[in-house]
Amino acid sequence: MKRAVVLCSGGLDSTVAAAEARAAGYELYLLSIHYGQRHAVELSRIPQIAETLGAAKSLVLALDLRAMGGSALTDEVSVPKDRTADEIGNGIPPTYVPARNTIFLAIALGWAEIVRAEKIYFGANVLDYSGYPDCRPEFLRAFEMLAKIGTKAGVEGWQVRIEAPLLKMTKAEIIRRGVALQAPLHLTHSCYDPDIAGRACGRCDSCRLRLKGFAEAGLADPVEYVAMKPAS
Amino acid sequence: MKRAVVLCSGGLDSTVAAAEARAAGYELYLLSIHYGQRHAVELSRIPQIAETLGAAKSLVLALDLRAMGGSALTDEVSVPKDRTADEIGNGIPPTYVPARNTIFLAIALGWAEIVRAEKIYFGANVLDYSGYPDCRPEFLRAFEMLAKIGTKAGVEGWQVRIEAPLLKMTKAEIIRRGVALQAPLHLTHSCYDPDIAGRACGRCDSCRLRLKGFAEAGLADPVEYVAMKPAS
Repeated sequence: MKRAVVLCSGGLDSTVAAAEARAAGYELYLLSIHYGQRHAVELSRIPQIAETLGAAKSLVLALDLRAMGGSALTDEVSVPKDRTADEIGNGIPPTYVPARNTIFLAIALGWAEIVRAEKIYFGANVLDYSGYPDCRPEFLRAFEMLAKIGTKAGVEGWQVRIEAPLLKMTKAEIIRRGVALQAPLHLTHSCYDPDIAGRACGRCDSCRLRLKGFAEAGLADPVEYVAMKPAS
Repeated sequence: MKRAVVLCSGGLDSTVAAAEARAAGYELYLLSIHYGQRHAVELSRIPQIAETLGAAKSLVLALDLRAMGGSALTDEVSVPKDRTADEIGNGIPPTYVPARNTIFLAIALGWAEIVRAEKIYFGANVLDYSGYPDCRPEFLRAFEMLAKIGTKAGVEGWQVRIEAPLLKMTKAEIIRRGVALQAPLHLTHSCYDPDIAGRACGRCDSCRLRLKGFAEAGLADPVEYVAMKPAS
């Protein structure tokens, strides 16, 4: 059975990306990186998500990027709240984590080479977060090129490809696709700033885009919120 | 003062690379990754190396790649011994760790972006280890391209460059250069298979190339060995 490493944070997009890999016939190797993000509650859902998707293996690696500082997700700075979709999409967001996706893809590449996976599935999306430089298609192509040059696999003639099936989908389309693929959306978590019980805040960029997406898809979000304010 | 992140394992090459960065006028940010390598004794020398080189900061990050398996450096398979320089240089060695340098450079890139370092110094070398795909010049150029596309830094027009000053040096040249730069070679450690007291085995590929290098440089290696068998 052909194999895919799936970068899975336990969030909505990466869980739908995992469901896409499964639907494409891949045996799933779910890779999650605990990098010191404050929304680590996402990762607590990984075992259930892995089980629901029938993953062959689920690996959670710790890499504490907090020691480097530099981001709203890992530092003790405030997460922006109540921004509109336009404000969220404008420029590089403060939640940008330097080189995060390069780091994640590099680790995924290592695992892909070890288990001989031909694909890395990655839930990157350019529409809602155009500001992240490491979600852009040209970044993904550059990474594939690097993977070809920099691995034993590439030298021996088999290549690890990056698959980003959600790259140009709207959040509503991702949600509809997730429902169609029976992705366990009820287990996913997207909030940058959950409360102590793990409930989504409903007000950070990630919550607002998610709620807007469910509203546009005409569906109810199955997860629990402290407040519900879809981005206008 | 301009800054450089230096990937420093505590080994000979990376310590000389750090000394090169210092000589070029950079403030040093030493980055060491504890990835579960069995020769973790290298990392125990980092604090002294950092102090001797006058580094501004030294960061040791843990990322346990053993969970992925796949290499003589992290698995419980035997390290090759008593090989000649030709045997060592032929093909991809069993000590290749999938995507290791991609992972290391990605993490270094994140830190470089945070501290606004303009360079990443990297002790890669193609002569003794031509078999490692992720030490080749074209790999380093591909990584620079990726760094430009995939970071906020790149988007904003300042670029992180990879400096690999030892890339085409022989081991003897690296050693002579290290001595000229007053790099703390006595603190470095290269062995893949040290004994329980941390003494170098003298027989693994890394020890043999190091001993051969010191012999060719006409210098005595200041570190202690169980046995001394330079590669012929």
